[in-house]
Amino acid sequence: MPKISEKGLAMPASPIRKLVPYAEEAKKKGRKVYHLNIGQPDIKTPEVALEAVRNLKEDVIAYSHSAGNESYRKKLSDKYREININVDHTELLITTGGSEAISFALMSTVNPGEEVICPEPFYANYNGFSIAAGVKVVPVTSSIDSGFALPPIEEFEKKLSPATKGIIICNPNNPTGYLYSETEMKQLAVIVKKHDLYLFSDEVYREFCYDGKHHFSAMYLKGVEDNVIMMDSVSKRYSMCGARVGAMVTKNREVLDTALKFAQARLSPPSFGQIAGEAALDTSDAYFREVYDEYIERRNFMVDALNQMPGVKCPLPGGAFYTTVHLPVDDTDEFAKWILSKFEFRNQTVMMAPASGFYSTPGLGKQEVRIAYVLKKEELKNAMEVLTEALKVYPGRIA
Amino acid sequence: MPKISEKGLAMPASPIRKLVPYAEEAKKKGRKVYHLNIGQPDIKTPEVALEAVRNLKEDVIAYSHSAGNESYRKKLSDKYREININVDHTELLITTGGSEAISFALMSTVNPGEEVICPEPFYANYNGFSIAAGVKVVPVTSSIDSGFALPPIEEFEKKLSPATKGIIICNPNNPTGYLYSETEMKQLAVIVKKHDLYLFSDEVYREFCYDGKHHFSAMYLKGVEDNVIMMDSVSKRYSMCGARVGAMVTKNREVLDTALKFAQARLSPPSFGQIAGEAALDTSDAYFREVYDEYIERRNFMVDALNQMPGVKCPLPGGAFYTTVHLPVDDTDEFAKWILSKFEFRNQTVMMAPASGFYSTPGLGKQEVRIAYVLKKEELKNAMEVLTEALKVYPGRIA
Repeated sequence: MPKISEKGLAMPASPIRKLVPYAEEAKKKGRKVYHLNIGQPDIKTPEVALEAVRNLKEDVIAYSHSAGNESYRKKLSDKYREININVDHTELLITTGGSEAISFALMSTVNPGEEVICPEPFYANYNGFSIAAGVKVVPVTSSIDSGFALPPIEEFEKKLSPATKGIIICNPNNPTGYLYSETEMKQLAVIVKKHDLYLFSDEVYREFCYDGKHHFSAMYLKGVEDNVIMMDSVSKRYSMCGARVGAMVTKNREVLDTALKFAQARLSPPSFGQIAGEAALDTSDAYFREVYDEYIERRNFMVDALNQMPGVKCPLPGGAFYTTVHLPVDDTDEFAKWILSKFEFRNQTVMMAPASGFYSTPGLGKQEVRIAYVLKKEELKNAMEVLTEALKVYPGRIA
Repeated sequence: MPKISEKGLAMPASPIRKLVPYAEEAKKKGRKVYHLNIGQPDIKTPEVALEAVRNLKEDVIAYSHSAGNESYRKKLSDKYREININVDHTELLITTGGSEAISFALMSTVNPGEEVICPEPFYANYNGFSIAAGVKVVPVTSSIDSGFALPPIEEFEKKLSPATKGIIICNPNNPTGYLYSETEMKQLAVIVKKHDLYLFSDEVYREFCYDGKHHFSAMYLKGVEDNVIMMDSVSKRYSMCGARVGAMVTKNREVLDTALKFAQARLSPPSFGQIAGEAALDTSDAYFREVYDEYIERRNFMVDALNQMPGVKCPLPGGAFYTTVHLPVDDTDEFAKWILSKFEFRNQTVMMAPASGFYSTPGLGKQEVRIAYVLKKEELKNAMEVLTEALKVYPGRIA
């Protein structure tokens, strides 16, 4: 039997998927499982997007332009200009989800063996895309004590090597919910400029900023226009994760031309998803206000509930819909399994993402979990009760 | 400005896209351009697939399972069993087009620097996916004189090296339309078995087999079940190229598990496309008969018309909807540009794909073009007239 590739062997299995059999077992036992583990919002997709698909006019579902439908790119660039991201439709490619935008950006710019620096904990799939591209992710550790703020720039400088090709950030952050400030972004611009690096900026949670804070896009940074590659997606903004539509945006013409060649090889992004994505640009402000109000309420409730549990520490996330939480347990990988398989409270249990999967430094995150507040408040309330009770009796509880 | 990656530099621009500006210029001059260059059929997508999308029930477009919706996988494996491909729903992954199936297959099995052997001319994007994966495609040249039949197995043996990891075929073939026989497939099985190679079999044109010939899937081969990886797609079968839905199919559990990790990193295949793909499995036999009759008529007309042109040689393709044709010209790259930019007949011109882009041996294919017979007969007739007249006056005409 011929061998599997080394990349294939190195690809991490999803840290969450490992828990799936335990969750399925719990469901078989008739237990209600609250899914705090995934970034799949329960919010409805805007009606305007669904209607566009339901009113499908085409009778041949043809390839689109490899860069995406021109009408969509034009409308999307108009939208970007409204928020002062000054690009036209030739400065972006429509991609198959934000995932492909990350993949195209890395493949177009970073050689196998080269490195990108990333604050950890980070979105676990950055590892996957990096392994696929042969790229090494070098972590700079952020701390729960500062609410996962950007680590001091000196820490980035320490990680620089001749192989460093860029810095990758997610803002607002998955898995921490931290929203990078204008000051932090400008610090990144300085180091990027000084060392001639790319800044890969994943901004798929842009609209999810709380407490009156504003999102400061990497595309706003001056003097590093050719260094910045922004990755975007319709998934979270319009609760349309399954559409698989995103965008890679940059002022760097050479990067665009190169990414287009990768885009041509895979022919085109999904046609139905593009129809939905283009229509979604007309989503009303009321929709976003409602979503915002809903998330703020969930966040406030959940952060309060978590911090009331003895030994639990949860920073107040400024954006997205995640928080990375310290739990008073020996090992959250074990705890997450245990709560699904050995625990129930009123026939309910919870599924959480152990944070070890979001760190690349071995041993880190063992006392942290990522919790996504993508459930209705009533369900969150029940989930928090389950967690409270579980922590009281978990055999591996410490401090 | 930071540098572009070496892979990015090495990625070939699509051989067809280079002609796009010339085609656009011709259209601006008011000329009708017949597109013989692309595999985008004009056939209607089955109504049953379109209706499923128009009747969309979901109000949250969520991620699907990374391997694709289970209901779709089950129905698809039922369909495969009907044609004696004995797989169940755990032996396939739904992918984002056949493109991603190729990508996952290569990434999961072939290391950077290793080689796959492929009969040339071959689908140009195999190069793109190989470059992305760091894999080298080693060509074995097939000849128009044998109608692009499988080259003798000795020719494959000559190309074997310690770095050879597999053989990739497309059956029926894009760009030649050649349909590999059972005998040829069994020859491939012998070499694959003997040298412990993977056999990557791209079968997206499976339904397009003419003259009473039957498709012999690589999945039928005995004793090499763990070596065979089949790539499939809804694009051509249901004229649904834009749906971006395909499948990677194999009995090799290790390959499946590995590919699933790549699939998890990109989260899920497109939800809307999966709805259409699942519904399309109910497409009536009448649809396929109509499509078959249409293509047979087009093919017969076109092959006749081409062979009537002095100096032109066109084998009779047994499958798909392409043919690779010898033209009596110096260089088809130049001819394809010339016909778009300097020629018109009754205010019409044609766009063809120069075959050089389908060969990896430098210098080959300079007198060949790929023609896709994806237009209605009346349009094909006009296109053939244009080509006839153009060949009479092309300054670079030879022989």
